[in-house]
Amino acid sequence: MKVAFVIRKDCKRCATIAKSIIELIPPDWEKIYDTEAAKFLGGVGKDITEISADIIIAIGGDGTVLRILQNAKGPVLGINMGGLGFLTEIEIDEVGSSTYKLIRGEYKINEAMKLKVYINGRRLEDCTNEAVVHTDRIARIRQFKIYVDGHFLTTIKSDGVIVATPTGSSSYSSSAGGPLLLPTVRGMVISYLAPYSSRIKPVVVPSESTVEIKIAGNDQDSLLILDGQKEYKIKSGDTVSISMSEEKARFVSFRESIYDRLRDKVIKHVVN
Amino acid sequence: MKVAFVIRKDCKRCATIAKSIIELIPPDWEKIYDTEAAKFLGGVGKDITEISADIIIAIGGDGTVLRILQNAKGPVLGINMGGLGFLTEIEIDEVGSSTYKLIRGEYKINEAMKLKVYINGRRLEDCTNEAVVHTDRIARIRQFKIYVDGHFLTTIKSDGVIVATPTGSSSYSSSAGGPLLLPTVRGMVISYLAPYSSRIKPVVVPSESTVEIKIAGNDQDSLLILDGQKEYKIKSGDTVSISMSEEKARFVSFRESIYDRLRDKVIKHVVN
Amino acid sequence: MKVAFVIRKDCKRCATIAKSIIELIPPDWEKIYDTEAAKFLGGVGKDITEISADIIIAIGGDGTVLRILQNAKGPVLGINMGGLGFLTEIEIDEVGSSTYKLIRGEYKINEAMKLKVYINGRRLEDCTNEAVVHTDRIARIRQFKIYVDGHFLTTIKSDGVIVATPTGSSSYSSSAGGPLLLPTVRGMVISYLAPYSSRIKPVVVPSESTVEIKIAGNDQDSLLILDGQKEYKIKSGDTVSISMSEEKARFVSFRESIYDRLRDKVIKHVVN
Amino acid sequence: MKVAFVIRKDCKRCATIAKSIIELIPPDWEKIYDTEAAKFLGGVGKDITEISADIIIAIGGDGTVLRILQNAKGPVLGINMGGLGFLTEIEIDEVGSSTYKLIRGEYKINEAMKLKVYINGRRLEDCTNEAVVHTDRIARIRQFKIYVDGHFLTTIKSDGVIVATPTGSSSYSSSAGGPLLLPTVRGMVISYLAPYSSRIKPVVVPSESTVEIKIAGNDQDSLLILDGQKEYKIKSGDTVSISMSEEKARFVSFRESIYDRLRDKVIKHVVN
Repeated sequence: MKVAFVIRKDCKRCATIAKSIIELIPPDWEKIYDTEAAKFLGGVGKDITEISADIIIAIGGDGTVLRILQNAKGPVLGINMGGLGFLTEIEIDEVGSSTYKLIRGEYKINEAMKLKVYINGRRLEDCTNEAVVHTDRIARIRQFKIYVDGHFLTTIKSDGVIVATPTGSSSYSSSAGGPLLLPTVRGMVISYLAPYSSRIKPVVVPSESTVEIKIAGNDQDSLLILDGQKEYKIKSGDTVSISMSEEKARFVSFRESIYDRLRDKVIKHVVN
Repeated sequence: MKVAFVIRKDCKRCATIAKSIIELIPPDWEKIYDTEAAKFLGGVGKDITEISADIIIAIGGDGTVLRILQNAKGPVLGINMGGLGFLTEIEIDEVGSSTYKLIRGEYKINEAMKLKVYINGRRLEDCTNEAVVHTDRIARIRQFKIYVDGHFLTTIKSDGVIVATPTGSSSYSSSAGGPLLLPTVRGMVISYLAPYSSRIKPVVVPSESTVEIKIAGNDQDSLLILDGQKEYKIKSGDTVSISMSEEKARFVSFRESIYDRLRDKVIKHVVN
Repeated sequence: MKVAFVIRKDCKRCATIAKSIIELIPPDWEKIYDTEAAKFLGGVGKDITEISADIIIAIGGDGTVLRILQNAKGPVLGINMGGLGFLTEIEIDEVGSSTYKLIRGEYKINEAMKLKVYINGRRLEDCTNEAVVHTDRIARIRQFKIYVDGHFLTTIKSDGVIVATPTGSSSYSSSAGGPLLLPTVRGMVISYLAPYSSRIKPVVVPSESTVEIKIAGNDQDSLLILDGQKEYKIKSGDTVSISMSEEKARFVSFRESIYDRLRDKVIKHVVN
Repeated sequence: MKVAFVIRKDCKRCATIAKSIIELIPPDWEKIYDTEAAKFLGGVGKDITEISADIIIAIGGDGTVLRILQNAKGPVLGINMGGLGFLTEIEIDEVGSSTYKLIRGEYKINEAMKLKVYINGRRLEDCTNEAVVHTDRIARIRQFKIYVDGHFLTTIKSDGVIVATPTGSSSYSSSAGGPLLLPTVRGMVISYLAPYSSRIKPVVVPSESTVEIKIAGNDQDSLLILDGQKEYKIKSGDTVSISMSEEKARFVSFRESIYDRLRDKVIKHVVN
């Protein structure tokens, strides 16, 4: 068994949590650290892109989990160090009991859709949450053309366009007014940041579809942001293409059903 | 070939359109009328529930189309006599050319998901657009419990809950803030009328799922409305169950792709 | 000093709270009961329309407060017996301490705008929260024409139209997507229930304006609902006119500023 | 009479329009040009900040009008050269007839509220539409604290916060889900770009209030953008203060009432 530890940048508390787990897991399990964890725990850290393990323990927040899923190989167990933590499985006070479950193999691996993203045919990192095409100048609306499977869908004036997976539907896309997609839905959702017209609604497309976004007009440079982690410049005439990846995001889970998770993380306390 | 004509109630203009089609189609095609059409065209009209044909020509609006899909058997060709006409295929000025296409067999039959709906295990009419559970007293919010595949999802206080097909996602569900589902999406959308809390978002669930809605609390009588056509009373403790029907809604279409239709009917003029 | 007690229908717990207050207040203060409170507390109850007092203690929820403001005369102190209680000032566990503040005169009277409402020139009850014009048949959209100060604003297809005061802006209007108006804003907000088009936005108009709503088309009977308490039938051709009343809603308050109240009641826990 | 001409950057067509107006107006009227107009029309152009006139003719779009109102002195007559043109009064085909009205004095000057904006007590340019505080890194949500008249209102996680005048309520604030404020409303609206929580609603505050926005947390550099024209960097701890300016935006208008303008520009074609 090979366990990797990846922690949030400069987070000493995260390293302390890592240490407490390391003390509990069997001595014959192989442990590897990313460069951040190695700063605090000693040893030689690996760059996140070189990490491959049976379980990757992410200590931090959703950003840490997304960075792992974008760069490393292996199922992720996220430990939430603050914030809402849609993608983290456990809270700090569950670290001990969850480690024992890990040792006893009492966990499941849930798979989730990832997006593959191209600019003009060049493949970039996969996304677990969403790809965002956004004006590169704040408060300067852009005009985007959206195609599904080669068919023109609409032209939209907005600050940006988001294409999100079901996992990502509770994140940035939700802030943009997008619906929640249950993890079992085979689809993606297209939503819009500050659309000029309120006529356009978020659109749900099948997971087999390819969504293309083109920047209309000249002098409309924009940015492509993948999972809030990586940024690429795009310019008028460029085509961003987004579809389902062959790769899956894999999450270690101790919960019985995805509905438990949904209620815990996404839909709590709605009545009032 | 057997062609049925169903028209909007008391619509003389609709009957005139029907007549103009009848004059064009081959004399050996069998023609049948619903009771409304027969009022104007003569002959013995059939009750809509007894109509079964190779093509059913609906002259009126979306209501006429929905009533046919709920009661009759056969693919529908809708002729729009006013209003937006999401479900009608052609406008009045296309009647002539479209009739010739019909005669030459130059059309497709598109299938769309229907919902089957139960109250306490008793099956009701199928829906093409949506099933709505709604308070029976205006401006008196109700509390609904929503389950997906037997798992509790959330409790919602609102005027009502809508479960819509992709076809219905551009109708009442859209007025309630729901997203647009492309016709190719295998899913349904749950949206809410005047929800007390703005925290809850419309939820997209897979087409294989069963959505159950229960009325929470006592003294909370409500209504179940199917496609805006049929109304049933429900009371506290009753369970409304909604899932994909074995039956399909079938539409006669002259368009090349569903995207043409989408742009024509749903997503036009978004830029300004 | 004359104190009136009005309680929620059939609420024995409410009567118990009333009793505990009565035991604390000076014996020379005059106490009067509404018919509901009298059922439990003895004595001769007054109809709510006959109640006039220096302070009216409302024990129940927002409905009880709204009913008093619609029918009785005097500033209201609301005690929340469950629910969110936008219009109630105190919770059950504050009853003792608040009664002492009342006795010592340590309270303020806050005034809030009320709406006066006419159907075809006939004046109805004033509203503290909102007037709603709503289709009388569920899921049957109506077409409403809206005028401001005699000028045509727009035609809207929807389930209903709401005109709300700043006080009511956090209630039903908010469920319909309306903004929050600070209590100090001299304005009203027009919002829409399930509008057919998402192009129309809620509109804020000055408090001096008169909003008129007409039902367009024939056969479009609707309902006018005042503060969720009183219902009137309206029919095609009728005009509902809504403007600022000369009367004010008066609330007993122990809070230092309206912002304390806003944060407590309306805007809490927004960050997550 | 002194008339100034300001045109969109590098817009030769705009200069042609200017020329056609110049040929119509009386020879004894003084004409001045901004540097852009002078490029095409000859003569010595003035910097926009030095322009002061009885009427300033803006040929371009809303950006041109906003730039004039931010920098020059005098009432503006906007000619729309493309785009929606909320702030422009006339279309190209009305230039001739409108110039004659101008000569005959058949116009009104409408005044509209402007915002004065401070960073840490330093006054910046006034705004006609809105002031936006926005994260300086795309897709990186910030936490903002909002105060009204010194009272803490709420903390909001979002891409940005907008404070808009009634004039600006139909622009960027509307894209962010804000309501429309009639020009006669004495208020401002606070709305949010991609808010993390959907619980928070746009808030309308009185025009006499001062809205303060502070950036919460460290390392949260942001931008302040005034009318989409001027940009300032702000950092953690800085306070942006927004209130009603003593100055007014003044618009030349040929319309009889503000409602004509509203319907033409903002609320058209709502029914379908």
